[in-house]
Amino acid sequence: MLKYQEIAEKIEAKIHKENLTQGTRLPNLSQLIKDYEVSKSTIVKALTILESRGVIYQVQGSGIFVRRRKRQGYINFLENQGFTADLDEFQLTSKVLDVSLIAPNEEVMRNLNCQPDDQVYHVKRVRYITGQTLCIEESFYKQSIVTYLNEAIVADSIFHYLNQALGIRIGFSDKYLSVGKLQKEAATYLSLKSGDPALFVEELFYLTSGEPFDFSKTTYHYEHSQFFLQSNSIHLS
Amino acid sequence: MLKYQEIAEKIEAKIHKENLTQGTRLPNLSQLIKDYEVSKSTIVKALTILESRGVIYQVQGSGIFVRRRKRQGYINFLENQGFTADLDEFQLTSKVLDVSLIAPNEEVMRNLNCQPDDQVYHVKRVRYITGQTLCIEESFYKQSIVTYLNEAIVADSIFHYLNQALGIRIGFSDKYLSVGKLQKEAATYLSLKSGDPALFVEELFYLTSGEPFDFSKTTYHYEHSQFFLQSNSIHLS
Repeated sequence: MLKYQEIAEKIEAKIHKENLTQGTRLPNLSQLIKDYEVSKSTIVKALTILESRGVIYQVQGSGIFVRRRKRQGYINFLENQGFTADLDEFQLTSKVLDVSLIAPNEEVMRNLNCQPDDQVYHVKRVRYITGQTLCIEESFYKQSIVTYLNEAIVADSIFHYLNQALGIRIGFSDKYLSVGKLQKEAATYLSLKSGDPALFVEELFYLTSGEPFDFSKTTYHYEHSQFFLQSNSIHLS
Repeated sequence: MLKYQEIAEKIEAKIHKENLTQGTRLPNLSQLIKDYEVSKSTIVKALTILESRGVIYQVQGSGIFVRRRKRQGYINFLENQGFTADLDEFQLTSKVLDVSLIAPNEEVMRNLNCQPDDQVYHVKRVRYITGQTLCIEESFYKQSIVTYLNEAIVADSIFHYLNQALGIRIGFSDKYLSVGKLQKEAATYLSLKSGDPALFVEELFYLTSGEPFDFSKTTYHYEHSQFFLQSNSIHLS
């Protein structure tokens, strides 16, 4: 981990540990430089990360302040792979329905930019949040990049394994979101009725090199899933 | 507009004008410095903004590349106030149902941190996207900040007016998202049936000072609304 990432994590941990509320003023730049014994550029980079992630906001000429959502029980929609800040709040478990190597169909090839003879891991899981059914998730991983998966791995955090065991670094992702009526198969897995509302999310994950390696389709249980998202001035101006 | 914002807009405009696809390599740092006749720090700041907004990705030791979603017809969920990049793609119009000064109810006071005698503008609109019903939206603006609104203003882009006429700068926003069944009133406005699926979004907008000034509740038509969102390494690592 780079120094500025480490400092960013320390500042975020402090905010959580001391349970600071939105609007709480943090020490100013020169105090942070002293407190963490790092250079000005390291602190500036750490603050840029924390601002992008919605942990702080900076008011020019006034200071650095804590940013925290008011409502509990919402999952961070942009960070739902990591769940870092939500670890204390939510317990995620999975039931594995399938993990197997298959040939990609046309939809998977189109999304992952791959060929009929590129094998992909197919993973299907029901996911639970603090004991309640959260979603049914189907994912396709290029085997040329994700060289090995098994049931024990996919029962746990796949992204943790990709990062720690395979050294895969995720560069970015695209999410596509829509709302509709549940079809029969998904309704059965979610213990809901056909025609009930559902949130559908398709997501493409890319390596830092820009190559797509994971295509996933998730159907969320409408009664057990609520999300929050944070925009900042970069998005709004 | 600051110099680096101007350069960021120019680079983005060039990507759109030349219709560059995802993965297209852009000129390197020293070439960009020459092309736009600005300092290195200005280009670095412009690239940071473009990366945060999902317009480019940078691969260490390799270069700067275009990032573009593959699918058309999706609304940017983080930037849906601005619609900047989507201007060519979507036409947004509104039918105003109400704009009036009212006393805030308990829910509005809790969200906007205000008192019973703080007046708020209540705005209710049906919004249309390329002629189809997109959503029904109800918003509450603190009058102490948004000093004046009328029907002509809210029939158009409220945020454009806030920025251009009142000089209000938005610092950040929190969105809360859930899915459920339509109630009768919203169903009528959306020409749907009670019990049909709906996406519910509540959003709080803050000034750059951190003060909340706008609380809005939007119900989206499930057949006419689909969104995309971009995560980057800041969210995923």
